[in-house]
Amino acid sequence: MAPMDRGRTHRIRLDLAYDGTDFAGWQRQPDRHTVQGRIEAALARLYRGPVALVAAGRTDAGVHAEGQVAHYDAALPIPPDGVARALNRGLPPSIRIRAAAVARPDFHARYDAISRTYRYHLVPGPPPSPLVSRFAWATGRDLDRGAFESEAAALPGTHDFSAFSVASDDEPSRSPIRTVTGARVFRSDAALVFEITAQSFLRYMVRRIAGTLEAVARGQLPAGCTARMLREPGLPGPRFRAPATGLRLHAVGYPEDLGE
Amino acid sequence: MAPMDRGRTHRIRLDLAYDGTDFAGWQRQPDRHTVQGRIEAALARLYRGPVALVAAGRTDAGVHAEGQVAHYDAALPIPPDGVARALNRGLPPSIRIRAAAVARPDFHARYDAISRTYRYHLVPGPPPSPLVSRFAWATGRDLDRGAFESEAAALPGTHDFSAFSVASDDEPSRSPIRTVTGARVFRSDAALVFEITAQSFLRYMVRRIAGTLEAVARGQLPAGCTARMLREPGLPGPRFRAPATGLRLHAVGYPEDLGE
Repeated sequence: MAPMDRGRTHRIRLDLAYDGTDFAGWQRQPDRHTVQGRIEAALARLYRGPVALVAAGRTDAGVHAEGQVAHYDAALPIPPDGVARALNRGLPPSIRIRAAAVARPDFHARYDAISRTYRYHLVPGPPPSPLVSRFAWATGRDLDRGAFESEAAALPGTHDFSAFSVASDDEPSRSPIRTVTGARVFRSDAALVFEITAQSFLRYMVRRIAGTLEAVARGQLPAGCTARMLREPGLPGPRFRAPATGLRLHAVGYPEDLGE
Repeated sequence: MAPMDRGRTHRIRLDLAYDGTDFAGWQRQPDRHTVQGRIEAALARLYRGPVALVAAGRTDAGVHAEGQVAHYDAALPIPPDGVARALNRGLPPSIRIRAAAVARPDFHARYDAISRTYRYHLVPGPPPSPLVSRFAWATGRDLDRGAFESEAAALPGTHDFSAFSVASDDEPSRSPIRTVTGARVFRSDAALVFEITAQSFLRYMVRRIAGTLEAVARGQLPAGCTARMLREPGLPGPRFRAPATGLRLHAVGYPEDLGE
C-alpha cells in the first residue's frame, strides 16, 4: 500500500461485493438503480464532489459479485479504513465495500486485470428454498452432472466464442476470440457450481455457456454440443442463456496480488 | 396421502420456505407485509373465499424458513400439485410452496409437531459478501469456535429457559421449561451454523441462546455462562439477542413423517 500525502491526488482501489437482485446492473444509467450509481453517490457525499468509479467487470442486471474491484481518484486524504466504513454507512446492505486501499497512481481496475473468475450456481430438481434460489438458478429439472462436467471440459483453451455471445453494437470489430484458463464444476450445499476463468469474456458469454451446459445435462441438446459450437462458431443453432440470478463475479486477478 | 373427494372439506398440508428479510414475520397483521398474509391472499384468490392458515412456527420479523409446515381446510377439490403451482404463481419469489398434500382431517400443523429444528448462521470476521450476510449474522468479530461449541453442549436436556426468553404478555402462565433434544455446531461455506431441536421454544429463545454463545465465543461473557443461566434462570444478567437475519426454521417433525 502506497503512503498517503496531503494535497495530491490518490488512486484508491476498492474490493467490493453486491447482491445484484435489485439492481439494473453495474453501470451508471440515468433514472436506474445501479451499483455504480449508488457507490458514486456515496463517494460524492464523502468527498463533496463528483467521483468517477471504474470497475473490472461491468456486470449485467441481476448479476451478483463477491470479488468486484474498482478504482477512483480522490484529492481529499481520507484514510482507506475510514473510506470503507464511511461508504458502507452510506450504502444499502446489498452493497458492501470489503476493502479500500491506496493503489499505485497508474493502477487500472479494468485494464490491469489479468484474470476474471465467474461462478454460476445451479440448483436442479424440484423448487428449492428461496434462501438457495436468490443466488442460484433453480432449474426445476433434474440434470446429469457427468454430462455437465464433460461439456465444461471442452472450454479451456483459445477459441472463437461467437456461438456463446451476441454481436456487440458498441464494438462491432471486437474479436470473439477468448482464452479460457480454467473451468471446473463442484458442489456447494444444494448447488452445482460452474466456475470459469479468462482474462476477459464476451457479453453474456458465461450465461450462454451455463445455459448450454444445462441444456445438455437435462438432455435437450446432444452431448458434445459445446465442443462443436467452439469448432463451428458460425453454425446457426439453439441459443440458451441461463438467468442472471445464478451468476456472480467471484474474483479478479492483478499482477500485484500474486505476491500476497 | 388421503384420497380427494368432491363435495367435502379437505385438510391440506403445505411445506414451504421463505426469505423473511422483507416480511414483518409470519403472523397476519393489518397493514403489514407478512408471510401468512401473503399466502392467505393467494389462497383466497385460488379458492374464491377466505382461507385460514395455521403454521407450525410463527417466525418473527426477518426470520427465514426452509421447512415451515402449515395447514388449511378447503372445500374446492383442487389437486395438490395444482395448488402448489397456482400458489407459487401468485406469490413473490421470496415465498415458495415446496409441497402440497391432502392430510388426514385432524392433522394440525402446530399441535401435532413433535419437533422443531432451527438453524442460526453466523459469519465471524471482517464484513462478508452480501450473498452470505443476507441469511446470516455477519458479526464483524472473530470468535473462538471451541468456546462456542462448549457452551452449546450445555443445552440438551430439560431446563428452565427463562434467562433466554422474555416474559410473555399473551401467556403469562406459560411454563418456561423446555426440553432440548439436540444441539450441534457445524460449518457451511463461510458460516458457522448452530442447530437446535426441541418440541417447542420460548419467544426469542434461539436468538438469545445464539447471542449468548457468540458473546462467550468472542470473550465478552465468561465460559460456562450458558450452563449457569440454565441452573440459575432467575439471576439478573446481560441479555444478548442475535439478529433475526441469521435464524431460519429448518424443519418440523410429525409422527406421520417418521415412516417415510
